[in-house]
Amino acid sequence: MTRTIVESATKTVIIGFDEPFCVIGERINPTGRKLLAAELEAGNYSTIERDALAQVAAGANILDINAGVVYNSNPNPNETEPPLMRSIVELVQGLVDVPLCIDSSVPDALEAGLEAANGRPLLNSVTGEEERLEAILPLVKKYNVPVVAISNDDTGISEDPDVRFAVAKRIVERAADFGIPAHDIVVDPLVMPIGAMATAGQQVFSLVRRLRDELGVNTTCGASNISFGLPNRHGINNAFLPMAMGAGMTSAIMNPVALPISQKKIAEKKEAIEAAGIILPESMEDEAFVALFGMGSTKPLAGSEMQAIRAANLLTDNDPHGAAWIAANKPAGEAGGRAGRRRRRG
Amino acid sequence: MTRTIVESATKTVIIGFDEPFCVIGERINPTGRKLLAAELEAGNYSTIERDALAQVAAGANILDINAGVVYNSNPNPNETEPPLMRSIVELVQGLVDVPLCIDSSVPDALEAGLEAANGRPLLNSVTGEEERLEAILPLVKKYNVPVVAISNDDTGISEDPDVRFAVAKRIVERAADFGIPAHDIVVDPLVMPIGAMATAGQQVFSLVRRLRDELGVNTTCGASNISFGLPNRHGINNAFLPMAMGAGMTSAIMNPVALPISQKKIAEKKEAIEAAGIILPESMEDEAFVALFGMGSTKPLAGSEMQAIRAANLLTDNDPHGAAWIAANKPAGEAGGRAGRRRRRG
Repeated sequence: MTRTIVESATKTVIIGFDEPFCVIGERINPTGRKLLAAELEAGNYSTIERDALAQVAAGANILDINAGVVYNSNPNPNETEPPLMRSIVELVQGLVDVPLCIDSSVPDALEAGLEAANGRPLLNSVTGEEERLEAILPLVKKYNVPVVAISNDDTGISEDPDVRFAVAKRIVERAADFGIPAHDIVVDPLVMPIGAMATAGQQVFSLVRRLRDELGVNTTCGASNISFGLPNRHGINNAFLPMAMGAGMTSAIMNPVALPISQKKIAEKKEAIEAAGIILPESMEDEAFVALFGMGSTKPLAGSEMQAIRAANLLTDNDPHGAAWIAANKPAGEAGGRAGRRRRRG
Repeated sequence: MTRTIVESATKTVIIGFDEPFCVIGERINPTGRKLLAAELEAGNYSTIERDALAQVAAGANILDINAGVVYNSNPNPNETEPPLMRSIVELVQGLVDVPLCIDSSVPDALEAGLEAANGRPLLNSVTGEEERLEAILPLVKKYNVPVVAISNDDTGISEDPDVRFAVAKRIVERAADFGIPAHDIVVDPLVMPIGAMATAGQQVFSLVRRLRDELGVNTTCGASNISFGLPNRHGINNAFLPMAMGAGMTSAIMNPVALPISQKKIAEKKEAIEAAGIILPESMEDEAFVALFGMGSTKPLAGSEMQAIRAANLLTDNDPHGAAWIAANKPAGEAGGRAGRRRRRG
């Protein structure tokens, strides 16, 4: 039975065929987020702290740490990423106790993260590209860590799932040459947007089954890619994750935090409410407003990705006695009643 | 490629491996509903009418018609069910154009429904019980209709999925003796509650694959059984349906209407809202209240079973060009904005 062991100083996470699905939180990543990059350049780590705490509270089993910044003062990531990776790793493992996933395209940043991380982090990632194999596999061996293997190579990302399977197989074989066992390789078969490729779902489901049956490896994916470009992405993601789990996928890199509500949406809702003749109190906290008006909450919602995963854990017999499901889902009436009474005034 | 053809006077529904999932609406069923039985005894069919319209509006492809009443004036269903079945079938096919599923434990009620129904209804159901096989298969042959085959027999419902598969196989063989082809048999492999049997999900997924691969039959189930006795049943159902579809299930008998809101829940919500210092207008229609306070709506919600099914249709490449998904999911901002403007007063 394939088991990929990932550890922090105090916590062990097993990615495996008979384990609950492993959720790797993707939020700590400044790539393409100019505001966050500017904060980090100014030494402000408050967004990172919030993202770390919120993802663990939502149920992330592992946190991905990506330090992909472009600073105004220095546009060279080979110089800026390694020290930033070290800082973020140290910060995050001081805040939360889950294992980390060290994620970079810069090999020196990967090594900086591996040096700074406690326990046995997951490395993200190697590909089938020759240069990448030569750079990353020695790191995997040296630090004795598991690694995410993305199934593209020097020819790019193939639309043919057989080619992507062959790339994954070659990475597993090359890793074996370095003495790295298959159970330390977590293959990402690459999820295409279903809006661009109608067979994208079926490709993933059949690739995951083959990777599991023929290579005996664990699998992961950037789950939200599946819904790129389509309306109601959560609705698609919420069905995709259980289906991928049913096919045997054992982890995903994703946002575990339930439907974040924007200030704009809250303002729009207040406008609609007042237009309906409802009078709101002069001051009302966003959290109370959002809870009362059913716009979401910091807890997993009906329809959230984490809820879909918890239900699929139950349905694949990876939630002994349904304990995790029951703990996450108190009967609605009970919770609502209590909340109502607690909110009563005077 | 297995195709089960079900028809009304004007509409054809194909249950098949390469078709969108077939949703059989289960709401028209007075079994265990004393109030509805009393209404029907008094000749009041308004609940039936509402249930028919609401289920089709929510996306049901077929409506199940069950006339299982116990009247105060007559406790014998062999006498009361056949005429009631005929009345309901005639009423419903005057209201909506979807095909029907004639559902009864009383053979005379089945025949009354078959006589009254236009087109080619689905018959629900035969089992592996000897008496039932002898009573139902001749009806299936005589009326040339497809039939739901439930995989229990004279020994009851086996907890062993191999036994349930064997029962299904025997029904298919017995049907063949009557000249009924396998593509007119829709097997229900029987869904056990996951709260009572931890392997219930995996049993269904593997049975569905075997029924499809080895017997070449379409499949159905009473989908909500999976979550019986557990909190947040919708959350479990919403993951179960995509997983079952991923395994190859082609239809389900279920409630397609999104999270119905009870008057009790509305009253509780109003109390909580007023406790928070919000002043509601003196009169406010339930529909507007429920929409504003995010308690649900008559449209599919994020997290509804119909949404999960539509997403899984997309993910199994049974929604050409994603047209059905896109039609059902206008971007939330757009819809919200319009609703807000429409509700504005003066």
